[in-house]
Amino acid sequence: MTLDATASGVFPIASTPFHSDGRIDEASVDTLIAGYLKAGATGVTVLGIMGEAPKLEPEESLAIATRFIKGFGKLPVIVGVSAPGLAAMRGLSRAVMDRGAAGVMIAPVPSLRTDDQITTYYRQAIEAIGTDIPFVIQDYPLTLSVQMTPAVIRQIVQEHPSCVMLKHEDWPGLEKISTLRRFQAEGSLRPISILTGNGGLFLDFEMERGADGAMTGYAFPEMLVELVKLHKAGRRDEAHDLFDAHLPLVRYEQQQGVGLAVRKYVMMKRGLIASDAQRKPGAALSPKAREEVDYLLARLSRTGRAC
Amino acid sequence: MTLDATASGVFPIASTPFHSDGRIDEASVDTLIAGYLKAGATGVTVLGIMGEAPKLEPEESLAIATRFIKGFGKLPVIVGVSAPGLAAMRGLSRAVMDRGAAGVMIAPVPSLRTDDQITTYYRQAIEAIGTDIPFVIQDYPLTLSVQMTPAVIRQIVQEHPSCVMLKHEDWPGLEKISTLRRFQAEGSLRPISILTGNGGLFLDFEMERGADGAMTGYAFPEMLVELVKLHKAGRRDEAHDLFDAHLPLVRYEQQQGVGLAVRKYVMMKRGLIASDAQRKPGAALSPKAREEVDYLLARLSRTGRAC
Amino acid sequence: MTLDATASGVFPIASTPFHSDGRIDEASVDTLIAGYLKAGATGVTVLGIMGEAPKLEPEESLAIATRFIKGFGKLPVIVGVSAPGLAAMRGLSRAVMDRGAAGVMIAPVPSLRTDDQITTYYRQAIEAIGTDIPFVIQDYPLTLSVQMTPAVIRQIVQEHPSCVMLKHEDWPGLEKISTLRRFQAEGSLRPISILTGNGGLFLDFEMERGADGAMTGYAFPEMLVELVKLHKAGRRDEAHDLFDAHLPLVRYEQQQGVGLAVRKYVMMKRGLIASDAQRKPGAALSPKAREEVDYLLARLSRTGRAC
Amino acid sequence: MTLDATASGVFPIASTPFHSDGRIDEASVDTLIAGYLKAGATGVTVLGIMGEAPKLEPEESLAIATRFIKGFGKLPVIVGVSAPGLAAMRGLSRAVMDRGAAGVMIAPVPSLRTDDQITTYYRQAIEAIGTDIPFVIQDYPLTLSVQMTPAVIRQIVQEHPSCVMLKHEDWPGLEKISTLRRFQAEGSLRPISILTGNGGLFLDFEMERGADGAMTGYAFPEMLVELVKLHKAGRRDEAHDLFDAHLPLVRYEQQQGVGLAVRKYVMMKRGLIASDAQRKPGAALSPKAREEVDYLLARLSRTGRAC
Repeated sequence: MTLDATASGVFPIASTPFHSDGRIDEASVDTLIAGYLKAGATGVTVLGIMGEAPKLEPEESLAIATRFIKGFGKLPVIVGVSAPGLAAMRGLSRAVMDRGAAGVMIAPVPSLRTDDQITTYYRQAIEAIGTDIPFVIQDYPLTLSVQMTPAVIRQIVQEHPSCVMLKHEDWPGLEKISTLRRFQAEGSLRPISILTGNGGLFLDFEMERGADGAMTGYAFPEMLVELVKLHKAGRRDEAHDLFDAHLPLVRYEQQQGVGLAVRKYVMMKRGLIASDAQRKPGAALSPKAREEVDYLLARLSRTGRAC
Repeated sequence: MTLDATASGVFPIASTPFHSDGRIDEASVDTLIAGYLKAGATGVTVLGIMGEAPKLEPEESLAIATRFIKGFGKLPVIVGVSAPGLAAMRGLSRAVMDRGAAGVMIAPVPSLRTDDQITTYYRQAIEAIGTDIPFVIQDYPLTLSVQMTPAVIRQIVQEHPSCVMLKHEDWPGLEKISTLRRFQAEGSLRPISILTGNGGLFLDFEMERGADGAMTGYAFPEMLVELVKLHKAGRRDEAHDLFDAHLPLVRYEQQQGVGLAVRKYVMMKRGLIASDAQRKPGAALSPKAREEVDYLLARLSRTGRAC
Repeated sequence: MTLDATASGVFPIASTPFHSDGRIDEASVDTLIAGYLKAGATGVTVLGIMGEAPKLEPEESLAIATRFIKGFGKLPVIVGVSAPGLAAMRGLSRAVMDRGAAGVMIAPVPSLRTDDQITTYYRQAIEAIGTDIPFVIQDYPLTLSVQMTPAVIRQIVQEHPSCVMLKHEDWPGLEKISTLRRFQAEGSLRPISILTGNGGLFLDFEMERGADGAMTGYAFPEMLVELVKLHKAGRRDEAHDLFDAHLPLVRYEQQQGVGLAVRKYVMMKRGLIASDAQRKPGAALSPKAREEVDYLLARLSRTGRAC
Repeated sequence: MTLDATASGVFPIASTPFHSDGRIDEASVDTLIAGYLKAGATGVTVLGIMGEAPKLEPEESLAIATRFIKGFGKLPVIVGVSAPGLAAMRGLSRAVMDRGAAGVMIAPVPSLRTDDQITTYYRQAIEAIGTDIPFVIQDYPLTLSVQMTPAVIRQIVQEHPSCVMLKHEDWPGLEKISTLRRFQAEGSLRPISILTGNGGLFLDFEMERGADGAMTGYAFPEMLVELVKLHKAGRRDEAHDLFDAHLPLVRYEQQQGVGLAVRKYVMMKRGLIASDAQRKPGAALSPKAREEVDYLLARLSRTGRAC
């Protein structure tokens, strides 16, 4: 199956589980897949920044993507293929599509500045990987330092029929979603799927602005799934009640640089992965930080909303 | 009175109220001062970035600082004096100290990169303003793009006896507070006051890491005051209960670029200022965003913790 | 007189002469003016980055601009009015125009990234200063980190009839000049004056690409004047012969951060200013660097092209 | 043979020759090797930024490095191994050393800011590749946006006995060389080789400041070789005469983004490579730019110093 512009729901940004010595923990990949499926994920995204993709060797990347593709069965797997060079991007894209990926995700290289540089880059990237592979634009200025206006996103979408989704991770970004949906209503932008990131920190309102769901790695993916459902059912207050119960932890997890350690620690405590180890270089949580996370988990547990 | 290293509590980052035509609204300055005092502020900081300082003419800056100094009486007023040039910094610093300011706050210029460039800049700045003016280091990498390590902050503090406070606005920044307090415990750093920013988004844990209070402009300063008190009384759960009730709004206000419009809109609704106008250039809230803030305020109100 | 789109020739970026204690050296302002006029300058630009404008107090800025305006008589004086805030920009612009300036130069603030942010900024700036003041776009990405495409420059020019000139200081930038002149030939851009910066490092070819002259502060302004003349007379080889004789020094002076110290040192040696002091903070030349400049001057002298 | 701290002379940054369809042109690799050897190179550096390394697939990188190692025989080949991830860096480093490389070159990742981040990164990198591989620090702030002070470089050198060389490509950078050599004279830095980059734009004075030679890709490597020799023979004026004859072209080639197209065009005209094609994405020279380079070559030829 391939990805198309009707995708919605929750695509977790998959963590990559490691043993404490840095080897990939394949057994944990399987428990993680099971956990995502049980949580109600409608797909998954692997080899993202939070999946520690840049730390992997090419054969490891391919092996992980393949394992997720098998594990997710008929559900779509998106593979992050961002790379400094187009040859490597092409190689990985063709390889994972051959193995059954639903599409690929492409982030702009950090040096891009002007509107024209950004649209030119996507033109070169799509020429490299081929026009037959569905792709996702990753818009993540906080980390990538590339700022894409709604008009630039529209231009990329309109130029490339194979563009089916925006991973929206701008911050702030609520007005951006509204603007893109207005473009769509006006007819200047064809429909695309918009899934949002940033750890879910604004997911409550992002859904109300027109997002189709979430693509982020918060350690309680079932909350994201339930929130999307409540929103679609029009149950606004309940959606916010659920969201607010998780917000202290969502906020704590959404710290640049430290966040992945928090996320993996919670996933380990929840049994989704065996170890919270990151491949080097990676930040470890201090004992004090672990205590803070434990405290937040205990408080979340008391709300009865920890799922 | 002058600022010293024992300062604690809440120093709001004062908004600057404008009429809708861009003139300064002096009457609102007075209601704002009254509001801050009623909320329990232990001081105030004027002419910060969120006070729209760069949009003011020199004589306006001085007039606003003077009005706050009068209004705060015996409570300390810190004045932001960051400027592209040291002559302007010196001029404003001397002028506000003459009028009764308690100290000044200095941010690094955005072009600084290496540790040595940063410490050299503070050396030049203090030489320019004079060693007799108590000053605050503003550490705000997200906006200023200058990254100061704990060791660099320590060096600045140790070199300059007139350094009395750190406005801590790193993100993430919890470990930074712990490290600085550890330096202090080890004897390699003399005691300084640490007040934290970022709209209060981590104030719950920042206090637990050793902060002395908050220096930020969240539209409910009484929450910040109460949180600091609860923490000092050792009532951890209550502090977090209060914080969590406000977190959805704190989070919404803490959006780069949009945040000030949210803050002023809430302050206007609360009667702290007459208009939420910003001097140009300034972002206005969309009707949808206003509805979202109204919704968050209504939800906060229902918790009984809106103060 | 006011500036218009037919301006050409050489507008030196004026240095600001200081005494060694940091006070402005007004006598040297006068000798400098005399030197520029003798060199054949067709105008001058004051309060630029290389004029140490950010280090000046507002009244000093106005005094220097006024002194140059008087000294240049009927020749046009452009005043740099870039400022973090629009109120300050407006204040200085109106004041210098009242005193007889020919126009103002506006650089984008360094935080601008997208095409839309840049054009919006110029819209706000021109609304602030008024549509009656001729202005120059300063395009200087190496220092300002703002990248303007030819299309963005065209949009600013077309939107604002008061835009009369581009100070072109992109690097590399030859194709940019060609593109803008092609826009003009195609009728999509009205004629504007293009003067180039970067210390003159590419002036030989910039003229051939369509520049109208130079706006830069190289310590031998008469070389720039002569080069422009030779080019206009179609004497290509002679223009390059002259340029190449100066290139070792031009290159040495065009070092970010150090360049101004080199420039002032040479101007002092040539009697254009009494001291090479910079107002703090400013880099001084090491003895070794001074020896190197002396050596380059001696070599230049031997070519018979030192003017 | 392995690289050590006594290395000197000229290590060209090797271009990677491509056919116009983007395939690697192996025959041109051989003519290029022959050209470098004939020019008097004392070694070579492959897979640098200007070698279009990020555009290559892993097996291509290894093949090119191997071909150069064979072609250079007993002369040292340094291989650029900079990569977003340490696993990839380790893999390439071990592989090329197995095949006979003399050492590797490591650039910091562009996100590093503080002194501590930079030294930590090198610690992690050396732990990854192993302490037995001689390595070169690449200090290239203009492109990488990482600023290393002399003290940071010293710390890296002193911490890692396997660090044998600095590729100095700061701009401006003359004082940096002097400072490092002073550290060495004072005994706080052990001796290392310093080769300089930036297309040779300051090689005349870099040698006088204490550099051991050049590591850059200027299209006339024999000029760099001759300049180093003249300097070592104490023939200052002759060294500068030679340098000045080439400076107009050196300057033209040293344009960010465009420079590689200029370099490959000249190398093609000189018969060093068969085509000036770059693998996509790559900028092509405009006809006007080609004419300018032709003109500069003709002028250089007339000086009798084109070698």
